[in-house]
Amino acid sequence: MKYSRLFGKTTRDTVDGSKFVSHQLLTRGGFIAESSAGRYFFLPLGWRVHEKIKKIIKQEMDKTGAQEMISPVLHPLELWKETNRITSVGFELMTIKDGRGAAFALGGTAEEMFVDVVRKFRLSYKDLPFNIYQFSTKFRDEMRSRGGLLRVREFVMKDAYSFDRNADEFKRVYQAMAQTYTTIFSRLGLETSKVEADNGYIGGEYCHEFQVESDIGEGHYFTAEDKSYIAHADVARFKRDDKNVHEEFKPYTEIDAVRGSTMEDGVKLHGLPMWQQIKDFMVVDETNRLILAVIRGDYDVNEIKLARLVEAHHLRHATVEEIHMLGIEPGFISPVGLKGKVLIVGDTSLRTVKNAYGGANAKHRDALNMNIDRDYTLDLEGDIAMAKPGVIAENGQPLVEKHGIEVGNIFQLGYHYTNLMKDATFIDEDGKAKPFYMGCYGIGIGRTLAAVVEKHHDEKGIIWPKEIAPFQVHLISLTGGEIKAQEVYRLLQEKGVEVLWDDRDESAGVKFADCDLIGVPIRLVVSKKTGDRIELKLRSIKESRLVEIDEIFHLI
Amino acid sequence: MKYSRLFGKTTRDTVDGSKFVSHQLLTRGGFIAESSAGRYFFLPLGWRVHEKIKKIIKQEMDKTGAQEMISPVLHPLELWKETNRITSVGFELMTIKDGRGAAFALGGTAEEMFVDVVRKFRLSYKDLPFNIYQFSTKFRDEMRSRGGLLRVREFVMKDAYSFDRNADEFKRVYQAMAQTYTTIFSRLGLETSKVEADNGYIGGEYCHEFQVESDIGEGHYFTAEDKSYIAHADVARFKRDDKNVHEEFKPYTEIDAVRGSTMEDGVKLHGLPMWQQIKDFMVVDETNRLILAVIRGDYDVNEIKLARLVEAHHLRHATVEEIHMLGIEPGFISPVGLKGKVLIVGDTSLRTVKNAYGGANAKHRDALNMNIDRDYTLDLEGDIAMAKPGVIAENGQPLVEKHGIEVGNIFQLGYHYTNLMKDATFIDEDGKAKPFYMGCYGIGIGRTLAAVVEKHHDEKGIIWPKEIAPFQVHLISLTGGEIKAQEVYRLLQEKGVEVLWDDRDESAGVKFADCDLIGVPIRLVVSKKTGDRIELKLRSIKESRLVEIDEIFHLI
Repeated sequence: MKYSRLFGKTTRDTVDGSKFVSHQLLTRGGFIAESSAGRYFFLPLGWRVHEKIKKIIKQEMDKTGAQEMISPVLHPLELWKETNRITSVGFELMTIKDGRGAAFALGGTAEEMFVDVVRKFRLSYKDLPFNIYQFSTKFRDEMRSRGGLLRVREFVMKDAYSFDRNADEFKRVYQAMAQTYTTIFSRLGLETSKVEADNGYIGGEYCHEFQVESDIGEGHYFTAEDKSYIAHADVARFKRDDKNVHEEFKPYTEIDAVRGSTMEDGVKLHGLPMWQQIKDFMVVDETNRLILAVIRGDYDVNEIKLARLVEAHHLRHATVEEIHMLGIEPGFISPVGLKGKVLIVGDTSLRTVKNAYGGANAKHRDALNMNIDRDYTLDLEGDIAMAKPGVIAENGQPLVEKHGIEVGNIFQLGYHYTNLMKDATFIDEDGKAKPFYMGCYGIGIGRTLAAVVEKHHDEKGIIWPKEIAPFQVHLISLTGGEIKAQEVYRLLQEKGVEVLWDDRDESAGVKFADCDLIGVPIRLVVSKKTGDRIELKLRSIKESRLVEIDEIFHLI
Repeated sequence: MKYSRLFGKTTRDTVDGSKFVSHQLLTRGGFIAESSAGRYFFLPLGWRVHEKIKKIIKQEMDKTGAQEMISPVLHPLELWKETNRITSVGFELMTIKDGRGAAFALGGTAEEMFVDVVRKFRLSYKDLPFNIYQFSTKFRDEMRSRGGLLRVREFVMKDAYSFDRNADEFKRVYQAMAQTYTTIFSRLGLETSKVEADNGYIGGEYCHEFQVESDIGEGHYFTAEDKSYIAHADVARFKRDDKNVHEEFKPYTEIDAVRGSTMEDGVKLHGLPMWQQIKDFMVVDETNRLILAVIRGDYDVNEIKLARLVEAHHLRHATVEEIHMLGIEPGFISPVGLKGKVLIVGDTSLRTVKNAYGGANAKHRDALNMNIDRDYTLDLEGDIAMAKPGVIAENGQPLVEKHGIEVGNIFQLGYHYTNLMKDATFIDEDGKAKPFYMGCYGIGIGRTLAAVVEKHHDEKGIIWPKEIAPFQVHLISLTGGEIKAQEVYRLLQEKGVEVLWDDRDESAGVKFADCDLIGVPIRLVVSKKTGDRIELKLRSIKESRLVEIDEIFHLI
């Protein structure tokens, strides 16, 4: 391809207000162009990369026996009604009616569609397991669309759905997919962590995200130093270290406490450690149930863990009015005496501290020497604490905090959809109709592409991994090198090498800068100076050298 | 691929109420499954064919220098407002609002999007011409969705848009695309006719459909026997043969005529030929303009030709009330005396007949010896007649009537979009900003796939052309052939041959029938009977023979 003929050339303009390197470089390099917020054109250069990523994913998926197909973009809304997902889907679903009044959802995921097509066939256990997938546009009506391809409102996702005879069969498919995902991302130049994650309303332990470590990522997870345990902040389990458990019980006392309403105010007033204070956190769920979460003062409550423990879909902070209606005071809340008035939920860390202090349910009154089971009791006890750097995982390893870009996820669906949807069954060996056990496996192509750029660039531009580079060779002809360039271009094309030839009438400076920005692995320069030979430089290293054409073929 | 593992197997059920072979065979063969009316799943088998068709189109498009990219599915509605296409697009546009109130169109075509992305760049004449295309889902909210993939509400289309410096440059691109289309369809096993067609509101002579001749097609066109002229019924030009032009003028007379309101009633009453009668056809356009179309009695008015001549967007038949309001009578309409009351439009055929007869604008009154320019005059005169079998084309060839499936179309857009859309310009050599001259080139993948099946099947099933068959080899193992099958399967896979192995525990009859239905080019059978050898049969011929494995590699 001659660069002069390429649609979508480099631009010097930076993108206003975006702090993401991938957004800047992909835009400036002529890979993408914004249509409306969160919706992008892939220009020819960007589409080449996108399609190479798809190809690698397809190769690896097909190796596992998974089968590509496609579902319509418009999903009959009645299917989403069957599974009660119209309002509870976790992202904003877009819906539309056609000229005859039929309602459709713009697919954000396609569980219902795949169950629907599968139940059209009368399958038996002999047909199982199978794993069907598609590359298709997904719509997420996100309130915020982040810069570039990292969080968008429309993107191509590879979504796979496995249909299995039972949980055991599913687990084998799941393990194979986990391995396949690691392989896929590794081929794309991405080192990923397989992170235990929250499976939302589906539940169960088979749920992992594939995270590419990055400070700009929205993913938040913890990893043992030796990677023996990696888990999302919303599920990361860790040991609560014992504090003053050997202390003697002291008598419960309430005293005047003229202080502000923060935890720090309590520490300052009483001169006691933060961990000895009790932290109280009042929330309300979707059924207007008041929930008091109680935790050791040096930990924070993780709201997802809390929601799971109390089996709520949505939690919000209680208002000052709601707290006052209980006759108690924000900043001075205590579990003591609230039994029966709210649901009291405590973290296991409460058992690692004795003679705790905190509010006494009245303004400027604090309690000293509060002890669990003696002064207050819990309605529910469990893991509701957010991990933090340095806490010890259950396997004894200290945890490190990480941020990452989530490029893929795999999770069990179990019987969730096949129980809700009529006739989503196969005939088992015993002649009985049984629901399919399902799994789901996703990869966002655009975000993966952006993650590659976040990980593979320098101050000059992108450094594409070879397998997904838009071209293998970037040929630059300078003054006096035009005829040689023509010959090299022809030879490379004859050998099937993907070559981008910058044949423009531009300065060496402009051509070199564009070449570095675009990030093709091999740069070739021919000019009067290089004579019969060719200057070869790899994008990833600084040095260049003069070579014969044959040497180039060995590199590709 | 083992057939036992394939998702989407054959079914014996026929599709209720569909008379289309492609609909029946693709459904029964396990290639497609209906989601909602006019929206289909492509099952793994069907998707393989779909993707092979795409690959061939891509190869041929890329050879011409065209560049693949992609636009978002949701088009900002403001772009469609810029070109006034929201209501006048020719198909039902689907629109949607997001959570923030932004309005989008679900793309039916993508002219606005491609102009929009192009105008984001500051292009010069040096960047031209270029041709950018995408494979993307198109939405057409058709009132009727025909059987199977022939007319659907959602389909993947390859749509290309050329941006050219001027009309001359466009013409070269257009001719190259025309040639490319013929090559593409030929590789797909489709003989196509390049049919002159109506370019709607854009106008101009550069507009062609690629039609696959088929009695079930909705396309209607005429072709000279030697194919020197092929044109859609809406544009087909032909000579009007002279009738009684040498007759003497006779005096205009009105007489009582107690007859029915049809043309045949007139022939019967007067004992004169149909061609001597005048046919009157009253229509109303979108501005409520009354238009009387007048034509020789043995021709019919083509409403598209009529609309073009009177420069109307939409025509509808006048109601009886509207005709009565003129003080005249349906079934007895005449142009005589209507001058100034309606727009009188006549076909050139009126000049091939003298002393015509017809209604006299009153019930049961007819006129005799009506002559153009003497008894009535036209406001507009031109070609508004529908061709019919046997008429003579302008090049002297008789025309044959054809029906076809339209699989592709190419047409000029000229300056239509770039004049309506702001800043859709490039900087020309003279330093001035000029609008791009555009062309558009479409192929519907699903309909093309269905057309292949309509042309390549027998009573047992599909007969896929080799290049787009879902698999190259269909291996059948019968009793005693299991071990040999395993070996053949392995050898074929090692050589990269796409092989579908029917490894099920089914009868020979079932396996042969499924094989014929699916239509893979080469059938191999191994059984106790075939011993060390393999029975080879091509899907396209009846005979089978025993061969060694090596012989098979020569065939592929």
